Amino acid sequence: MSHHQALEALSSVLGERLTRSKADLEAHARSESHFRAPPPDAVAYPQSTAEVARIMAICAEHRMPVVGWGAGTSLEAHALPLHGGLVVDFTRMNKVLEIRSADMDVTVQPGVTREALNEELRATGLFFPVDPGANASLGGMAMTRASGTTTVRYGSMRDNVLGMEVVLADGRVIRTGSRARKSSAGYDLTALMIGSEGTLGLVTELTLRLHGIPEAVSAGICAFPSMAAAVDAVTETIQMGIPMARIEFVDAATARAFNAYAGVDMDAVPHLLVEFHGSPDSVAQDAERFGEILADHGGGAYRWSTRQEERRALWAMRHNAYYAVLASRPGARGLVTDICVPISRLAQAVEETAGDIAASTIPGPILGHVGDGNFHAILLVDPDRPEDLDEAKRLSHRMAERALRLGGTCTGEHGVGIGKLPYMAAEHGEGWQVMGTLKAALDPLNILNPGKLVPPRG
Amino acid sequence: MSHHQALEALSSVLGERLTRSKADLEAHARSESHFRAPPPDAVAYPQSTAEVARIMAICAEHRMPVVGWGAGTSLEAHALPLHGGLVVDFTRMNKVLEIRSADMDVTVQPGVTREALNEELRATGLFFPVDPGANASLGGMAMTRASGTTTVRYGSMRDNVLGMEVVLADGRVIRTGSRARKSSAGYDLTALMIGSEGTLGLVTELTLRLHGIPEAVSAGICAFPSMAAAVDAVTETIQMGIPMARIEFVDAATARAFNAYAGVDMDAVPHLLVEFHGSPDSVAQDAERFGEILADHGGGAYRWSTRQEERRALWAMRHNAYYAVLASRPGARGLVTDICVPISRLAQAVEETAGDIAASTIPGPILGHVGDGNFHAILLVDPDRPEDLDEAKRLSHRMAERALRLGGTCTGEHGVGIGKLPYMAAEHGEGWQVMGTLKAALDPLNILNPGKLVPPRG
Repeated sequence: MSHHQALEALSSVLGERLTRSKADLEAHARSESHFRAPPPDAVAYPQSTAEVARIMAICAEHRMPVVGWGAGTSLEAHALPLHGGLVVDFTRMNKVLEIRSADMDVTVQPGVTREALNEELRATGLFFPVDPGANASLGGMAMTRASGTTTVRYGSMRDNVLGMEVVLADGRVIRTGSRARKSSAGYDLTALMIGSEGTLGLVTELTLRLHGIPEAVSAGICAFPSMAAAVDAVTETIQMGIPMARIEFVDAATARAFNAYAGVDMDAVPHLLVEFHGSPDSVAQDAERFGEILADHGGGAYRWSTRQEERRALWAMRHNAYYAVLASRPGARGLVTDICVPISRLAQAVEETAGDIAASTIPGPILGHVGDGNFHAILLVDPDRPEDLDEAKRLSHRMAERALRLGGTCTGEHGVGIGKLPYMAAEHGEGWQVMGTLKAALDPLNILNPGKLVPPRG
Repeated sequence: MSHHQALEALSSVLGERLTRSKADLEAHARSESHFRAPPPDAVAYPQSTAEVARIMAICAEHRMPVVGWGAGTSLEAHALPLHGGLVVDFTRMNKVLEIRSADMDVTVQPGVTREALNEELRATGLFFPVDPGANASLGGMAMTRASGTTTVRYGSMRDNVLGMEVVLADGRVIRTGSRARKSSAGYDLTALMIGSEGTLGLVTELTLRLHGIPEAVSAGICAFPSMAAAVDAVTETIQMGIPMARIEFVDAATARAFNAYAGVDMDAVPHLLVEFHGSPDSVAQDAERFGEILADHGGGAYRWSTRQEERRALWAMRHNAYYAVLASRPGARGLVTDICVPISRLAQAVEETAGDIAASTIPGPILGHVGDGNFHAILLVDPDRPEDLDEAKRLSHRMAERALRLGGTCTGEHGVGIGKLPYMAAEHGEGWQVMGTLKAALDPLNILNPGKLVPPRG
């Protein structure tokens, strides 16, 4: 079926900013992970909300699928156009519209990346804390309900988006939320849109909460004899109420990958990386109390610093973990898992997963945001060995089932996309049907990212 | 129209726990505020989820309206049965089902009140922080997206409900969320239900986040020469990143009411009441830094204490503010307003409101959760003077419009109910129609709390 008429109408609105070049189409059929899709019919680069609304109205009229695209950093291929149609690439809607220091909020277009935003904020003493590692777009981060290393202190996108402007499936434009810090005025449409992966609307503007850059920061690292010991130390730290800003776990294989990739010299054992935010006194106190807990759990020396260059090096190493792990098996691609379980089940979940991987035919270093109960195995797949991908899928499947069995979720922060769709029925039961009902109500023609997130239409 | 058949079927399920006694019907046609409704046809007291599901299925079959009822403490009459039908009173579903200290969460039935929960938690070192003042039921608090004095530190119900069990309009039972601390697995049905005021389903179980009781607490009070000075001091404290656990404002009229009601001796000027949570060192430090900010803004001496009895007395006085203010005009009823604005507009909003009230014919002391930008005027209405209610409504209307003009919301925490329905169109624009679409999708017969929250069906 051709979308010839739709493309002509779109072209008359967008001119050169509607492209059908082979390179552009192929660039929007790829993802960071192993998923691939056939190329879309066209790629649009809108510059305003009015253009996005016009695009949606045209696509609704011609029943052409529409998929939003941010920075392309998704790990579950949310933005791949499974049914062709139009990819709406937001990279040219990348303006920081208004910074309101007194209110500690900011309004941005969806194509602004988190690093670009924090660069713009530098002079204000404020920052946007949600940090998934990749330099994702803020629109994409909202649509996948992203989180990351700082969630244990600052929350996820769910907690840091005050409101949005959204173009609905029929081209109507709504504003969700207000600039008030809280409201009881009706259904929380902001929360409904966050994590909806482009299936309910296209976000064209976001108002985000900002936080004060802490007066002092301390960060450090500690080796552990076992994963269980490290995880138990985290659990106790949480229960003691010591306010961690980041608490990251890496296993022995990841430590080895860091040594090779970042030129550091870590023992090949599990480690915790931690950060505290506060006053000079409080971060020193927190580090001290944390050091005592580590010692009780068999941790090694706790090496910490408040100096910026040392902290930067530590987190740069952590942020490059995905690439460090990929480099540990040259030529490999990663299938990244993302389960999240109640803290009391975390040690069990990590140990069972490690056992599974050890008994498998592929490597899979483990790391994660243990303060939230969220961890990843980066399953390393040789693209020339189809049996590797099968093995990775088998391991990933067992992890998702384990998470559900332990009261958790198949995806803590990466989203559903293509890879986690098979677990939605098991995770949500009848609730998944309710999601389908909501989708059908807001997108009756099923043109917004069709084939994703909700049950197939009957 | 009679619901005779429905009532017979319900009676066969519930026996004596379906009542039509005059006293019971009338008790469920009253609210804390001035709103009244005709009595419902019957009141049901279910004891299990299965019973609630059975009730819903019967009411759906006979198209009988269903309204959930918690503790009856709502200030906007959310639970009044505007179209008659059945009130489902959850007071007999009041069990704390499971406390999981290691995960710092708890599963409760909806009729458990926040005070009863904290009583049960006493031995665990944990507490549930959301505190709207009244001893509301947790189901009701979820359904109105309640918050209160501790929101500035611990968040509102939006932030503290991990998941729910909900009976839908057709009797299906779903579970939203999981026990994981975060998830990206599809639409946030928990957030959609929170604040839905019984229009999308009846909540039959809640899993709540708990927090560690802080090692040390300091609380204090400070007088100010003007409202603006007090509000400016709060704004600066927030921007300095001093982590307040509570920060409450009361005006001169409220201070006078406290003197008469609680036998205290406050100057008849505006005051701030504040609390810090942390370690003994940190709460002392916070109090000291806060004291410096107060002095810069013309505040009087900052009297603070870490002693429990003094802190208890302070917050008991604050929690009884509604009754203290009511007692300041004997025989009066209160019409309580609830606007919330961006912090930068708070001083303006409070001053304009105070000016309005001073120029009016009724008293209206002002107090609020200024750390969130949320404040209330308790407009005092003599029930024998109809012109008082008109005047209160006029003032309330001007406040709601002011909030919207300043980028805020007509209700920060009390909810929409009957009183704020007229502002939904102005606050949400086309978004309000979207709420109606969602409601129609999940409750096509319009039997769940009809007449509330969403636009009237066309």
